[in-house]
Amino acid sequence: MSDTAMFPDPAGRTKADVEAGSELLPKFDGDGLVGAIVTDEAGAVLMFAWMNAEALARSLETGVAHFWSRSRNRLWVKGEESGNRLTIREARIDCDQDAVWLKVAVEGAGVACHTGAKSCFYRAIVPGDGGGFRLVKS
Amino acid sequence: MSDTAMFPDPAGRTKADVEAGSELLPKFDGDGLVGAIVTDEAGAVLMFAWMNAEALARSLETGVAHFWSRSRNRLWVKGEESGNRLTIREARIDCDQDAVWLKVAVEGAGVACHTGAKSCFYRAIVPGDGGGFRLVKS
Repeated sequence: MSDTAMFPDPAGRTKADVEAGSELLPKFDGDGLVGAIVTDEAGAVLMFAWMNAEALARSLETGVAHFWSRSRNRLWVKGEESGNRLTIREARIDCDQDAVWLKVAVEGAGVACHTGAKSCFYRAIVPGDGGGFRLVKS
Repeated sequence: MSDTAMFPDPAGRTKADVEAGSELLPKFDGDGLVGAIVTDEAGAVLMFAWMNAEALARSLETGVAHFWSRSRNRLWVKGEESGNRLTIREARIDCDQDAVWLKVAVEGAGVACHTGAKSCFYRAIVPGDGGGFRLVKS
């Protein structure tokens, strides 16, 4: 079975089917992707990445987060090199089924960001001294 | 000042500038957008939406979440009709500055989803009885 065949085409369904139904009908964008928000179980956002149908299917089937790398143009197991794999505790989908929320446990060193930070969102946006905005690590 | 002029072009900066610096250098995609993850202060993901430069600038300047609607092709104040505006408590940006995380308080009825749910992510993805996956409200 191909991975895209795993998910029905939502174009054949009603808005009510997509928003209120119990059928998984992911709405992949023009590039074949849905956004994936990754948080820890306490609710800290760790990273944001993309999934094509294969990445979503493998993530759900294996319980280990797979993504589609737009820069490398290939399927990608988060942590495949660092050992910081993401074990999926819960997967949720939004109303129009074009975004996924994964609650995960980070394996290995517990680090989700390639910079070595626990979360990719290691900087807050704050007002700058002379107007505009600047970033502070926190 | 135009809103796009508010943010420098990250193409003129190094990877270290973008990832480790204190300068806000949002990397808008080919459609001029960055993704925006919206959570409440407790860490529940409420919604995912898009921001162009104007939406990001107005959000930061006013403290009220503005987005770019891809379907309506216009700037959009979340809650402009329902009254459920999103007051930004904290804004964060990720390592490569192409995704924003807003921690918000939902005004009005405290409902972030157009369906009337508190969060757009009102369904979990669970294994189906006959294989595959299905959605359950929870």
